[in-house]
Amino acid sequence: MSPLAPGRPPGPPGSTLPAVVAFGGGHGLSASLSALRRVTDRLTAVVTVADDGGSSGRLREELDCLPPGDLRMALAALCGDDPSGRTWADVLQYRFAGSGPLRDHAIGNLLIAGLWERLGDPVAGLDMVAGLLGAKGRVLPMAAVPLQIVADVIGLDPAHPDEVATVRGQAAVAKTTAEVQAVHLEPADPPACPESVESVLAADWAVLGPGSWFTSVIPHLLVPRLAEAIERTPARRLLALNLEPAGETAGFSPAKHIELLAEHAPNLRLDVVLADASFAGDDPHLDRWARSLGAELVVADLAARDGSPRHDTLRLASAYAEIMGV
Amino acid sequence: MSPLAPGRPPGPPGSTLPAVVAFGGGHGLSASLSALRRVTDRLTAVVTVADDGGSSGRLREELDCLPPGDLRMALAALCGDDPSGRTWADVLQYRFAGSGPLRDHAIGNLLIAGLWERLGDPVAGLDMVAGLLGAKGRVLPMAAVPLQIVADVIGLDPAHPDEVATVRGQAAVAKTTAEVQAVHLEPADPPACPESVESVLAADWAVLGPGSWFTSVIPHLLVPRLAEAIERTPARRLLALNLEPAGETAGFSPAKHIELLAEHAPNLRLDVVLADASFAGDDPHLDRWARSLGAELVVADLAARDGSPRHDTLRLASAYAEIMGV
Repeated sequence: MSPLAPGRPPGPPGSTLPAVVAFGGGHGLSASLSALRRVTDRLTAVVTVADDGGSSGRLREELDCLPPGDLRMALAALCGDDPSGRTWADVLQYRFAGSGPLRDHAIGNLLIAGLWERLGDPVAGLDMVAGLLGAKGRVLPMAAVPLQIVADVIGLDPAHPDEVATVRGQAAVAKTTAEVQAVHLEPADPPACPESVESVLAADWAVLGPGSWFTSVIPHLLVPRLAEAIERTPARRLLALNLEPAGETAGFSPAKHIELLAEHAPNLRLDVVLADASFAGDDPHLDRWARSLGAELVVADLAARDGSPRHDTLRLASAYAEIMGV
Repeated sequence: MSPLAPGRPPGPPGSTLPAVVAFGGGHGLSASLSALRRVTDRLTAVVTVADDGGSSGRLREELDCLPPGDLRMALAALCGDDPSGRTWADVLQYRFAGSGPLRDHAIGNLLIAGLWERLGDPVAGLDMVAGLLGAKGRVLPMAAVPLQIVADVIGLDPAHPDEVATVRGQAAVAKTTAEVQAVHLEPADPPACPESVESVLAADWAVLGPGSWFTSVIPHLLVPRLAEAIERTPARRLLALNLEPAGETAGFSPAKHIELLAEHAPNLRLDVVLADASFAGDDPHLDRWARSLGAELVVADLAARDGSPRHDTLRLASAYAEIMGV
């Protein structure tokens, strides 16, 4: 058990369940949170704030605020089981139709951005929405300022397949057909969110992944104070691999995913690498790469039973629970 | 006491306080609600939906929805006394700054409009926001469709001071320097909100005014099914006059205000006309006009003690309580 600290993840007083901090963004983080909320009542999500596309991109451009979309999705994944919480989560995820200036804005993005502007405090605004949803955990931004993701890629220009080029912005990086080799943040030394750092230092478990590797998983390790907290927290560190190498890491082996993480965070040590059996089974180098970071490799069936490329919530929850000894 | 009916205003079961329905819009209705919530715990606001200016005007144009602004203001006036209710009310009243498409949109307007689009039911959306605020009453629209107010005026063209002209739209009518003689609605026969009609029929008291006479008080009497309910409800009918003849009725006497109301609703009978002492004291015709509609005239000090042209909440509440025998 971690000591009682300001950043200790929320939960019922006296809870004996582990304090868990999950890092990520988008659908990968939602999958992780949906599973983790079934494992512990002391859960904090630390969420990427680099989105520059869609509703979030327009809001950060217009209001100079953090992009709210990934935070909203994480809150929805943690919404309460009562009808009020579920209804509000559904409403906050809804996007305006029509063809005017509001088109495609998620209601929750507008509400969060408005709370930020009114309250002048991102964490207070997120805590208010968490209260509205009866959220089963806390949602925090990984940095106190909006970020840009910049990627070094090769193969952007088919005429010069070995030339290194730069792709700027999360939306562009997530969609590029070129091969991403590395990412960095602008600004390069962004201030971390203090509450996020505190929650990492007070956690029993820190969970990285699954998710878009370059735009949702690695960025947390590029915010200096947050990376430092992840590296020196007494918490155990768990890396959950994706189910398949899609999108930004199409064609990459499981071992390559770990290698990329290590390249971006040379001091990172892991305790557990969790991989799906069908993806991990093909990779002779995975166990070695896991051990090179200090981690035990745990392989389990994690994919949805219908064959779709998404995690089965209860299988993932079961794996987390076994690993964490809950 | 009214019988238990579907439209009975909300309140604690077993409440022996009167069921009150208040009609209006804007700041006048807010003043009335702020006072009435201190008098009864069974309160319903039935709110005009003709605003076509500002944030509400842009939303009804973009989303083809009811204008949410007056409804939002009424909800804020009824917000709970707990810190959460007050904070949410403050947030929903806040308007975006900046210079982009969101500028001047009240957060609450966006939330209400989004709820309407997602739920497809204006009353369900308003009830959700009322729940969020812990509102001390229910807020309903007076009609199920957005309305336009059209005014017959004289003096619009200084070169032809006696010529009758038309001014269209609530924002334009509220601002015109011409003398308004009558208003009507477009469409002329809008569907009333069924829950509003039910709440009128189940009320013990129906309160008209104070407020902008042509754009917030009279319009309720121009929605046929709602006017019929106001005329035939077993509830007692109270008309609260304004503190001074400003804006749309600049220079009009108190008696003239009643005359205008009667011209727009020839079948309307009143039980009480409540007037501020300093405004009523100058008008020799007021008592006769009140009696002509069946009403007793009640004169009291209602204005703010600092001399500003607004109702003192506790003075107004005290007058309502005495009249209603609470």
